[in-house]
Amino acid sequence: MPAYQLYCFAQSGNAYRAALMLNLIGADWKPVFVDFFKGGETRTPKYRAEVNEMGEVPVLVDGAKKLSQSGVILNYLSEKSGKFRPEGEDEKLEALRWIIWDNQKVNGFLGPYRFLKTLSKPPGDPAVLTFLKGRIDNNLGILDKRLSERPFVLGARPTIVDISLVAYPYYPAEEFGFDIPGTYKNIAAWLERMKALPGWKHPYDLMPGHPLPA
Amino acid sequence: MPAYQLYCFAQSGNAYRAALMLNLIGADWKPVFVDFFKGGETRTPKYRAEVNEMGEVPVLVDGAKKLSQSGVILNYLSEKSGKFRPEGEDEKLEALRWIIWDNQKVNGFLGPYRFLKTLSKPPGDPAVLTFLKGRIDNNLGILDKRLSERPFVLGARPTIVDISLVAYPYYPAEEFGFDIPGTYKNIAAWLERMKALPGWKHPYDLMPGHPLPA
Repeated sequence: MPAYQLYCFAQSGNAYRAALMLNLIGADWKPVFVDFFKGGETRTPKYRAEVNEMGEVPVLVDGAKKLSQSGVILNYLSEKSGKFRPEGEDEKLEALRWIIWDNQKVNGFLGPYRFLKTLSKPPGDPAVLTFLKGRIDNNLGILDKRLSERPFVLGARPTIVDISLVAYPYYPAEEFGFDIPGTYKNIAAWLERMKALPGWKHPYDLMPGHPLPA
Repeated sequence: MPAYQLYCFAQSGNAYRAALMLNLIGADWKPVFVDFFKGGETRTPKYRAEVNEMGEVPVLVDGAKKLSQSGVILNYLSEKSGKFRPEGEDEKLEALRWIIWDNQKVNGFLGPYRFLKTLSKPPGDPAVLTFLKGRIDNNLGILDKRLSERPFVLGARPTIVDISLVAYPYYPAEEFGFDIPGTYKNIAAWLERMKALPGWKHPYDLMPGHPLPA
């Protein structure tokens, strides 16, 4: 049995962060498919009781440990592997700062935006999409500015902060109805730098469930 | 000069978490008022360049250190004081899990909801309020269930997780248009337990800027 199991599905940028980290550190892992779209599996009482009371992916299983929230999984795997790890108190605090911000304000809005725009039936209300898009533009602007001054979010080398933030921006532009790399040139260059890391894969090649059944 | 300065304003539940922590650990601190409502101060280039590129409160100043994101400030102060600190690797990971979830899904939605409902001019679109309220109800339900089985979020004693999660629920019900403690009985009892801690204060008694000028 592989060392790690990851509850995930291809369309989840949140799960992608954990899957990408596992691949980038060369871990022995396998996905456990969660049928979010057909069965609403994360919302079932069984999933909430046995896998994650928050009703979410990703969940990483490492022996007796079961960890949820991608930010937790990234921290755990970086400490265990020594890879992509922020070093020293100041850098660890700075990493936490960007990871929390990302979860609330970048991928935290990109996920629901894409879902309501393209995946949910019926699609979301236009006013909700406008609200989310306004937040997204503001926050991608902050990230783009940050990346104009350094190759990776914390500085010269890639860390778990980058692996957190790249989550949804690698998904196809047509799923958002706007082109993230086409709009933000520093983000675009950074996505290419991350893509060049050994072990990088696109979310649809890394996790099961793509394409969705018609 | 007090040991800590905290950039904040009374209406920010995010800043309240940091202010409450400082008071609960008995720190010597003073608020630095940020005029969010009149001057949009957090959105100015000056604030972004000199205080926080994310354009947010809270920001904690401790000598040469300047920390933003309440989750970072809570971690930092708990490590420094030894108070409300999760202990051991497993509890630290579990604390991080709930703090990230809170920032995205509980207070991360309560803040914008209350702002759009009551504080912004004009108020937010009803469809946006409905969207946010749906998320809030789901997530407060998860928290209420969690608190049905233990007095504090991680177990027998209060930690920084509780100080993070109580942020907006102490603000007046009329600012939300619904009554959080009145709706969720386990949350209500937990808010009372937190209120009984020495040093607890209501956000409007702890930070400057309330009431807003007419």
